[in-house]
Amino acid sequence: MSLKLFFAPGACSFVPHAMLEIAGVNFEPSMVKLHKGEQRTADYLALNPRGQVPVLVDEGVVITQIVAILLHLDAKLPQAHILPASGMERTHALSLLAWMNNTVHPTFTHFFMPQKFSDDQAAQKAMQRFAVDRYRECLQEIDALAAKGSPWLFGEYPGAVDAYTLTLLRWGGYAGIDPTTFPAAWALAQRFAALPAVAVAVERERLELNVYKPAA
Amino acid sequence: MSLKLFFAPGACSFVPHAMLEIAGVNFEPSMVKLHKGEQRTADYLALNPRGQVPVLVDEGVVITQIVAILLHLDAKLPQAHILPASGMERTHALSLLAWMNNTVHPTFTHFFMPQKFSDDQAAQKAMQRFAVDRYRECLQEIDALAAKGSPWLFGEYPGAVDAYTLTLLRWGGYAGIDPTTFPAAWALAQRFAALPAVAVAVERERLELNVYKPAA
Repeated sequence: MSLKLFFAPGACSFVPHAMLEIAGVNFEPSMVKLHKGEQRTADYLALNPRGQVPVLVDEGVVITQIVAILLHLDAKLPQAHILPASGMERTHALSLLAWMNNTVHPTFTHFFMPQKFSDDQAAQKAMQRFAVDRYRECLQEIDALAAKGSPWLFGEYPGAVDAYTLTLLRWGGYAGIDPTTFPAAWALAQRFAALPAVAVAVERERLELNVYKPAA
Repeated sequence: MSLKLFFAPGACSFVPHAMLEIAGVNFEPSMVKLHKGEQRTADYLALNPRGQVPVLVDEGVVITQIVAILLHLDAKLPQAHILPASGMERTHALSLLAWMNNTVHPTFTHFFMPQKFSDDQAAQKAMQRFAVDRYRECLQEIDALAAKGSPWLFGEYPGAVDAYTLTLLRWGGYAGIDPTTFPAAWALAQRFAALPAVAVAVERERLELNVYKPAA
């Protein structure tokens, strides 16, 4: 088995990164430094013309899109419990994963990279303001789910949606949203980060869990 | 088996709608008229607090998110070939489905419902202009894939990504993008609409395939 994961510290690529460590398989982690523009080099664009992370390369075949990467790994590495194995639990976890990916994540992008949605600076500022409120609502929704899940969002195994919860809460800190105001989700994220396998990924990405700075 | 699909004419709910017809199973189609605000009635919000379509109800259990609905139906109705059955073909189809759902679809939303991203009217206009160009690029990418796929994007069976291609091309018409300028994708969408099972869904939604109107 030859697996190579291209990830960027703190990006959503943390989700497959953490799940590969939980799976306990050999894989080659390859760091892409977004702040240095490494996702726009000719080599990287040859791999993924969209210039995004994560990318998984499995036996030389390139796989893009976090949902597809996670489902691919889930089929290949059932011992990792990336998603519940079957039935309505699996469907509900997939629904949450899809929403995190198509709604929560892009809501943050409107704050973090508004230039992806308009080249007008006033418009960028307007959508940033709007996005922060929407993002807080999304995190509240995740917090309510975390308050019901025990110990993880879908039962006894830490999975992809738990990893995504950690990532999304962290990002909130950059938008001035204090993660500790979502007590159930914050406790879950801390529990997830403390798993020995996950700690390896956290250390490799040099992730500070709480980046929130109170306004002076 | 009791399946009920809540759909809105022309919305992305067309994808599971068409695939349920292809599967040839009994299901109850329930139309939600978005222009009448039926997605914001108390009854509908009790079903899906996010006020979105599609919703699938399977034996009384509510499933939201198109990706989760399609994967749920794919597990339940393998004869429908919603996605390739396994292996790298399945992974690539999932990658395309995820991208259509998290990138192409929301790019159109920035044109069609900019109020979801800002309450500032000037900002809304700016992001609409920007979104139309990005949307055209997305449709070009789909057209290039359609030019390689034969007869369908992933081989011999018409699947979820073919249905989504039809929906996304139709939407382009509302944004002033002529679908016939993407010849391979447009031929695929027309072929898909002409399948007898799919024609039933097209008729139920009263879909006009090409809504593009040249500027006067």
